[in-house]
Amino acid sequence: MNAAQAIDFYFDLSSPYSYIASEWIDAVAARHGRTVEWHAILLGATFQAAELKSPVSYPLKREYSLRDFERSARFAGVPMTIPARFPIPTQNAARVFWWLKSSDPGRANAWVRECMRAYFTRAVDLSDPAALEQLAGQFGLDAEACAAAWNDPTWKVALKSANDAAIARGVFGAPFFVVDGEPFWGNDRRAQIERWLEAGPF
Amino acid sequence: MNAAQAIDFYFDLSSPYSYIASEWIDAVAARHGRTVEWHAILLGATFQAAELKSPVSYPLKREYSLRDFERSARFAGVPMTIPARFPIPTQNAARVFWWLKSSDPGRANAWVRECMRAYFTRAVDLSDPAALEQLAGQFGLDAEACAAAWNDPTWKVALKSANDAAIARGVFGAPFFVVDGEPFWGNDRRAQIERWLEAGPF
Repeated sequence: MNAAQAIDFYFDLSSPYSYIASEWIDAVAARHGRTVEWHAILLGATFQAAELKSPVSYPLKREYSLRDFERSARFAGVPMTIPARFPIPTQNAARVFWWLKSSDPGRANAWVRECMRAYFTRAVDLSDPAALEQLAGQFGLDAEACAAAWNDPTWKVALKSANDAAIARGVFGAPFFVVDGEPFWGNDRRAQIERWLEAGPF
Repeated sequence: MNAAQAIDFYFDLSSPYSYIASEWIDAVAARHGRTVEWHAILLGATFQAAELKSPVSYPLKREYSLRDFERSARFAGVPMTIPARFPIPTQNAARVFWWLKSSDPGRANAWVRECMRAYFTRAVDLSDPAALEQLAGQFGLDAEACAAAWNDPTWKVALKSANDAAIARGVFGAPFFVVDGEPFWGNDRRAQIERWLEAGPF
């Protein structure tokens, strides 16, 4: 095991379990001398590749999932209220992530944390360009430059490439982690990830 | 909260995560002064009601799931090797459960524990009547009486009623637990169940 090897963290900005995981992954990694490589992707793309759908699109599972999202957040100590409009398309915010990451990965990670907190605690609709521009401005970005970025073919392609690379690696849902080549799917794999980081493969 | 209230535990005998949960649920409940009401059901019935399929029936998710089953078992300290023939139909063994439960619930629970251990550690094919009769005999049951039970309309109806009751309660997968009316789906909700039993609703 290479202690310096980064943990790959795949997330979708509209995924409640991704949001919960985004609130602990950096701290857990740091405790074990690891860094985290954040990858904004779209669940729509991985669901299509894996022939899956959102858990809230199924009868019975929908009601349970809506309950479990917020209970799992409380369990993790993360504030969350599922917005009335859920899920939402998040490609614009994700393209801004890849644009920022090209020059400042730390800033890109902070941007998506801000997006998820805004959506899951204040119901800021990330799919609404005006709301997203306002959020970007509050975050300290140039709102017009952000809008230009999400309309720029360069960052559209960057996001599509990120989706394709994730799918090629076996990612079918989010959050999804790869630690030393080992795949872990779901916020609820935190305990297994922690054991792996602590004591190696099991 | 009524400390004496039983935990409802729904499982399918061919479900790896149900098997893992079956190895800890009684001990966890007992530590908190609770009992467990075991319910053998068929995932085929709940999947149909909820328009779901087995995780191993999807591309990408299949490979991950097969890896995660055994890793999650190792994490829980439960021996498991996914049999070459997986999943299998388990209605006969489940009917024997409901037959035994009608007179001796403890014996019924022991029977399904024996079935899951046999399938998940020695690849005993529970869907093969001859193999199931042999297992029943080794377990100390009258093999012919077992075969008569699984062919008896009474126990066919009992299993179907158990499936219907589970679905009516919102069960869409397995293992599924109901604690004080609160639903928990998945072996990986163990930590949440333990917190609930320890400190009540959260």
